[in-house]
Amino acid sequence: MTIPAQLCRPVGERIGLFVLDGLGGLPHPDHGKTELEAANTPHMDALSQKSSLGRVQLLPSGMTPGSGPGHLSLFGIDPIELEFGRGLLEALGSDYALEPGQIAARGNFCTIDGEGLVQDRRAGRPSDDECQRLCAKLTEEVSVDGVTIELIPGKQHRFTWIATAQDLGARVNDNDPQVTGKSALPFAGEDAASETTAAIAGDWLAKAQQCLAGEAAANSALLRGFSSRPHVPGFAERFQLHAAALAVYPMYRGVARLVGMQPRDAGRGLADQVEAVKAAIAEDFDFVFVHHKDPDTAGHSGDFESKVAAIEAFDAALPAFLECGLDVIAITGDHSTPTIMEEHSWHAVPLLVHSKRALPQPDSTFGERNCMNGDINLIAGPELMPLLLAHANRLDKYGA
Amino acid sequence: MTIPAQLCRPVGERIGLFVLDGLGGLPHPDHGKTELEAANTPHMDALSQKSSLGRVQLLPSGMTPGSGPGHLSLFGIDPIELEFGRGLLEALGSDYALEPGQIAARGNFCTIDGEGLVQDRRAGRPSDDECQRLCAKLTEEVSVDGVTIELIPGKQHRFTWIATAQDLGARVNDNDPQVTGKSALPFAGEDAASETTAAIAGDWLAKAQQCLAGEAAANSALLRGFSSRPHVPGFAERFQLHAAALAVYPMYRGVARLVGMQPRDAGRGLADQVEAVKAAIAEDFDFVFVHHKDPDTAGHSGDFESKVAAIEAFDAALPAFLECGLDVIAITGDHSTPTIMEEHSWHAVPLLVHSKRALPQPDSTFGERNCMNGDINLIAGPELMPLLLAHANRLDKYGA
Repeated sequence: MTIPAQLCRPVGERIGLFVLDGLGGLPHPDHGKTELEAANTPHMDALSQKSSLGRVQLLPSGMTPGSGPGHLSLFGIDPIELEFGRGLLEALGSDYALEPGQIAARGNFCTIDGEGLVQDRRAGRPSDDECQRLCAKLTEEVSVDGVTIELIPGKQHRFTWIATAQDLGARVNDNDPQVTGKSALPFAGEDAASETTAAIAGDWLAKAQQCLAGEAAANSALLRGFSSRPHVPGFAERFQLHAAALAVYPMYRGVARLVGMQPRDAGRGLADQVEAVKAAIAEDFDFVFVHHKDPDTAGHSGDFESKVAAIEAFDAALPAFLECGLDVIAITGDHSTPTIMEEHSWHAVPLLVHSKRALPQPDSTFGERNCMNGDINLIAGPELMPLLLAHANRLDKYGA
Repeated sequence: MTIPAQLCRPVGERIGLFVLDGLGGLPHPDHGKTELEAANTPHMDALSQKSSLGRVQLLPSGMTPGSGPGHLSLFGIDPIELEFGRGLLEALGSDYALEPGQIAARGNFCTIDGEGLVQDRRAGRPSDDECQRLCAKLTEEVSVDGVTIELIPGKQHRFTWIATAQDLGARVNDNDPQVTGKSALPFAGEDAASETTAAIAGDWLAKAQQCLAGEAAANSALLRGFSSRPHVPGFAERFQLHAAALAVYPMYRGVARLVGMQPRDAGRGLADQVEAVKAAIAEDFDFVFVHHKDPDTAGHSGDFESKVAAIEAFDAALPAFLECGLDVIAITGDHSTPTIMEEHSWHAVPLLVHSKRALPQPDSTFGERNCMNGDINLIAGPELMPLLLAHANRLDKYGA
């Protein structure tokens, strides 16, 4: 259920959405508290006394979101309905704003033998510098008529492959055989526009192999996850919001750009992000998305205390964020990353929504268990944005 | 929303789904506790401290499930979308594995007068032995060319009618006039294949009346709920699970078989079922469904103490079940059967999910009211299986 766009008011209060990546956790085996519950968070706890609490379920029951789907869900998009490929996320993660009509794929340098059989699907994991050299060489020496091919080097053997031309489709198979000792698969398109893309990819690959023939290891490439930019109506169109994304990492700027936010310089972390929020408000943005990566990183590493510290660092910055002039403050996560699991999980994430229209529970603090009894209860990710609009006095009544 | 099959991993931890039939209850008028809350259940209460709690709503708001739909919902099938007739449930309830292509109907022996008008829709409720004799007689003396007709005697006047032939359809009307003093209705099919079935049923009935002409009461039959086996993708296909059903009563084995579980000998009750779980795990099943009928039976009888005792009997067996080697334990019901109502009800049923990835509420015990505040909140029946797969580390992350 998407909020009808005509209910959204062009003016209203200012909203800040603070995403603590991987916020949700599970009890520590020794003391039974989650990371958020164990953290010393006086400012979030004080804010809870003046906030509606609840939990957000990003995907249907049991499904664990990656960062892309988790953020899309918070931004009001059903990630299951929105089909997009790995290539899009790679491009977004490289801070590349894939435009409608462009096709992106995830590339791997690989090693093939004299008969064209794949010997190493990662070309011996070259260094990042080596990956940059290979991408530069291909960019300089390989061209396909009528098409612009861009290569964005990534970590080790990884790169993003982007084709720009008229009428390209994205329904093209991966050429990765998935196992060594087999040939890469030929590219084929499922429709006319995708056949064009497949022909371009095949042409480029043949020329790339000639160009890389002298390389010791990285003498070919595998492409997968062909994708175009899906049509996603923007925040302005859907919610009448002028939205800024203040994320340090490119992946999150990319997802925000996809939904129509404007990325702004977020510096190197929380202190810079406070200044960035002030600057965005001065620029008349009425929605800011602030992304704090560290809790997720700590969760992946399995370091409970480090995740606690990452949450406490945000709490310490909260008073400064509260003084920026935002009217509605939402604090939540894009998924859980319990340190005892060392990976993302399906568990719903805690949610705090502060505004002067909140319905707090007495004596509540901000933690997984307290949030279960809150005003907001358990909502699906795409239900969050309408709720924030309502708290910001930005939604008209429905019906007389 | 069904979990995408490609997210399901072929390996993972072992799951036990324990269904206490009719588990949910309502407060006793004297002391205000439900049957589950009043029961002395130290083992379920202890497990609650290490479990995610919640409630399951088997059908849309206000709808009371029969046992078939209740179980299908738990097994991940939307019972509203899956059309199936009473005949199928009768066949399943008779431990008859209706195969694709076979047609089943629920039969009643009835009494007709000389003009063919129905005088008694239940033929004076013959004894079970009498029903067996009548079915045997018809099986021996009545045949329809090119068709195998099987009759499975039931309680009193009831039997299951099963036809096996090529190209049979199930869209055939009931011939039961619903009131006495009228003729049975002629059979008609809504499509060509169903017309074939209707013709067979009509032919069989005419011959059955000749065969039964000398009977004092049971001189005809009524057939209703013509049904074929619906196409239901199995647990292996949908969830990558090798599933065993350990139910004492045939109806529940039948529903489990319908979703691709393999029924195994469950003996006569809980003690035998413990051994059956061990045997199933030794056979490399990675999912076991254990069905405990008694709470429902007691609920129907309106005997509060008897339902309490049935729940306590399960609790007493729980430690033995916990030692079988299951990693994920779910305890719930297929519907509520409050003793004050003496029938099934629509109330959501309590749910406990134990795994090392659970998020317990401190100091919670297993009861209707406690479960309202649990991590799992209120889920629809078909949301349960994805959740159990997640707890068993059997689902891939969705998206990068």
